Amino acid sequence: MLHLKLDGYIELGDDLPNEAQSELNAFFEDANQKLLKKGAPKGKESEAAQVTQWSLKGDKIELQIVSGRYVRPHSAILRLSNSLSNLLGAKYHVGVRRTVATNYHIETELEKEPLEQVTIPFTKELKIEGNKAYLSLVEMDESELKRNYPDRILRRLEEKVAAQYVTGKAEFTRTIERSKKGLEKYKIREDPTETAVKLGWVKEFPGAGIWQIMPPYAALIRAVENIIIDDIAKPLGFQEVMLPRLIPLDVEMKKGHLGIANEIIWACPPISRDPKEFEEILDYVEITSTPPVELLQKKLRPPMFGLSYAQCEPFYELFAQEIVDIEALEKNPIKFYDKNGPTWRWEGGGLKGLERLNEFHRVEFVYMAPPEKCVEIRDQVLEKAITMIDKDLDLEYRIDATTAVYLEHAGITEEEKEEEFVKTYDLTVILPFETKSRPEAELEISSFHVHTDFYAKRFHFRDKTRKTVYTGCVGIGPSRYAYVTLIRHGFNYDDWPKKIKKYIGEKLPEPPQTVTWP
Amino acid sequence: MLHLKLDGYIELGDDLPNEAQSELNAFFEDANQKLLKKGAPKGKESEAAQVTQWSLKGDKIELQIVSGRYVRPHSAILRLSNSLSNLLGAKYHVGVRRTVATNYHIETELEKEPLEQVTIPFTKELKIEGNKAYLSLVEMDESELKRNYPDRILRRLEEKVAAQYVTGKAEFTRTIERSKKGLEKYKIREDPTETAVKLGWVKEFPGAGIWQIMPPYAALIRAVENIIIDDIAKPLGFQEVMLPRLIPLDVEMKKGHLGIANEIIWACPPISRDPKEFEEILDYVEITSTPPVELLQKKLRPPMFGLSYAQCEPFYELFAQEIVDIEALEKNPIKFYDKNGPTWRWEGGGLKGLERLNEFHRVEFVYMAPPEKCVEIRDQVLEKAITMIDKDLDLEYRIDATTAVYLEHAGITEEEKEEEFVKTYDLTVILPFETKSRPEAELEISSFHVHTDFYAKRFHFRDKTRKTVYTGCVGIGPSRYAYVTLIRHGFNYDDWPKKIKKYIGEKLPEPPQTVTWP
Repeated sequence: MLHLKLDGYIELGDDLPNEAQSELNAFFEDANQKLLKKGAPKGKESEAAQVTQWSLKGDKIELQIVSGRYVRPHSAILRLSNSLSNLLGAKYHVGVRRTVATNYHIETELEKEPLEQVTIPFTKELKIEGNKAYLSLVEMDESELKRNYPDRILRRLEEKVAAQYVTGKAEFTRTIERSKKGLEKYKIREDPTETAVKLGWVKEFPGAGIWQIMPPYAALIRAVENIIIDDIAKPLGFQEVMLPRLIPLDVEMKKGHLGIANEIIWACPPISRDPKEFEEILDYVEITSTPPVELLQKKLRPPMFGLSYAQCEPFYELFAQEIVDIEALEKNPIKFYDKNGPTWRWEGGGLKGLERLNEFHRVEFVYMAPPEKCVEIRDQVLEKAITMIDKDLDLEYRIDATTAVYLEHAGITEEEKEEEFVKTYDLTVILPFETKSRPEAELEISSFHVHTDFYAKRFHFRDKTRKTVYTGCVGIGPSRYAYVTLIRHGFNYDDWPKKIKKYIGEKLPEPPQTVTWP
Repeated sequence: MLHLKLDGYIELGDDLPNEAQSELNAFFEDANQKLLKKGAPKGKESEAAQVTQWSLKGDKIELQIVSGRYVRPHSAILRLSNSLSNLLGAKYHVGVRRTVATNYHIETELEKEPLEQVTIPFTKELKIEGNKAYLSLVEMDESELKRNYPDRILRRLEEKVAAQYVTGKAEFTRTIERSKKGLEKYKIREDPTETAVKLGWVKEFPGAGIWQIMPPYAALIRAVENIIIDDIAKPLGFQEVMLPRLIPLDVEMKKGHLGIANEIIWACPPISRDPKEFEEILDYVEITSTPPVELLQKKLRPPMFGLSYAQCEPFYELFAQEIVDIEALEKNPIKFYDKNGPTWRWEGGGLKGLERLNEFHRVEFVYMAPPEKCVEIRDQVLEKAITMIDKDLDLEYRIDATTAVYLEHAGITEEEKEEEFVKTYDLTVILPFETKSRPEAELEISSFHVHTDFYAKRFHFRDKTRKTVYTGCVGIGPSRYAYVTLIRHGFNYDDWPKKIKKYIGEKLPEPPQTVTWP
């Protein structure tokens, strides 16, 4: 069941003479027979658009159009406007100025009954009874009608109802490997953050989840990073690139990140580079010794960038609109890694420990290849990461197959389908205590992804012969790897694995010394 | 000449009985003789505050207070309020509820006559005739009076007028060293950005001054960074730390960066972590395929962080409120370096070339030591940087002594005073062409600073025996060093200096290959 009714008008460049009236009569009668039936399947012509009322008022033709499933009123009014423009232009030298749908009423049957209230933008009214939905849309102009807003509004409504039937990630998670038990070997038995602070290995910065990292802990993080590069990235042929950290809004949108805007820190440049515009801010500071936050806010542009959340966002943009040669990529897949500084997730102000951060470090692996090759690359990185965690760092861990990250990062919750391969593996290290910020005695330290052709489609790149192009990514975070290494091996440098010490040297660098700190 | 006149009131917790009238008479008479004279120098008592009018109206005592230079009316009303609170509390059990200056009129003589119009916040009116200024301040409550806003407003006014007499940085710059001429050896004779784009060494990112850096150029940047670390940082005993990139507003203020807010990109977290709050954003994207910028802006908090501009901001915060031992620092000065990812400057949207960027890389050196030691450290870093530019990279350069960076970064323009040492050196490489973004055939690639005790004071750290504590910093940017290396030695890897090739290996990594790019 789908009933659509549009009330709107076509505004002309000038008034029409009276004699045009009969011409318009003939035009609409004919349009109802032919123009508005075009595209409706055989036998379904009665469901196509139909002009049910029209009247000429000065320079406006007001109309009402109804339809069922085919040739919907917003397509119909655009067709009419287009034809009228030809007809009236030739005969009366009068053009069409605007085409507007003032009211658009929709009655439809949803696939599923909503479980809770749904809202949808561009609607003046939305009423749902059982699985019947009644929508009344806001006024729309030609460009909005052309871009198919009415259909997209209906699709969004269906999506939002469907999403209500899907619950969290946990449901789709299954453990596929568990290491042997080894917790008894861990040197640290409770969260090490307080000790690290006392020793001066880190210092709190006045921003939750953001730390000042002092020489000994920086040395550990760099050692771990070097192992990741020397033992995982280089042997597998990954090459270093430097991916930007300020992600323009348009790239964020294609990546799907506007669906998780609540987890991203957004960047706003100043409204102007002219110091005069900002004079008042310094005046306030000098007089009040307090940052004038609201005043500064007024001097900023709307958000122009998101701070990199996934680290790999720029990789897909690199290929936007490009055509790749998938056969060449079978032999030489694109394999990059990036360690170009921190990335950020807004975890809120409640963060307490070193394990969960708003600003953190990750070596990001990104790759593009034909489907099977792409899965193979991901599995190779996984295998080497397990070797590092198991053999080099001697940690207890678990591997889970879970919800595809590209859906999660696009704010999409979707039933996982049976597939021939796992899209996301999570690597979790088991801890002998609950972490500071969450009631969990474990820490997810890496995840390993194949995105299928999800980003190829969203960023519009393709193979020259239209073969399928897969991408994937893996984030291996020195911040979390250093944290679990510390827990396993403790604060005493002598106890650390040779592999780590090789990168640091004979002595661990010391924290700075002052009278009052550490 | 300084005349101050305050009209205001002291609001009581309750009405006073009529008999209190005579008591108040006595109180104010006595205050004019004693309480309000306290602190005025001998012989200057006539310039102290004086209550010229007062009247009791219900629960309010309205007053007018005038003064010259000593015991100003805002101090006077606070003293009165305090004394009255004791007096009336004991006798009538009535307390003071509020102390307010409704009008505050100031007549003063400025040191210099303003060259152009001046504005100042918290003023209802500001009139300047010659060097005479008349100010009328907005209503102020007790907390604002206690924090001395009136005096700070006057001081700010003087500062702003003085700043009008100081012109730009150029005036204070003098060249202290020039290398021998060598431009004829440069392999690249025009800006290399276009060629780098064509070769796929870099790709434009949809954000001016932000680039995607591909394997060959990333390799060059890393090689340069490694030389900086191996030949400058390590031999001089600098140790790696990791300094945060999100700088809280309070730290920005202490660093002085609210004075250059127009050059900083500001970061705003979401108003909530609740996805429900952001549902509408994804709805809009799904329906319109356009990022709803204004809607997103409404869902953000006021700016909470600046994106790191100077890279060294967290270093001073590290020591905030701490006490250091300057004798220990004579032997073991604190010497750190940071290469923890990019930093940002808002250069606007007009950037064209690889030489000037909104997001760029720098190895930042920071140090703390007694004064002479601090200058010595800075000079050692300078010397080694010159060796790198001169011997390793074989570039033509110039060294200038110029305006102290700590003043510039605090938005302060100040006459340079004759000092025993130079506070800032700039190292500039000469180019055989004008750069893309500025009409200059040169590029400043590093600067070398001693801050005196400017940041020790602003961040409130000190020596245990109150000896002077100096800090300094040097930024050596692999982004710019790589750019000038490319210009000197060209795109042909065979021509590159051995020193660089040692870090890259036999072959320069290649850019990715697609059908359409590079």
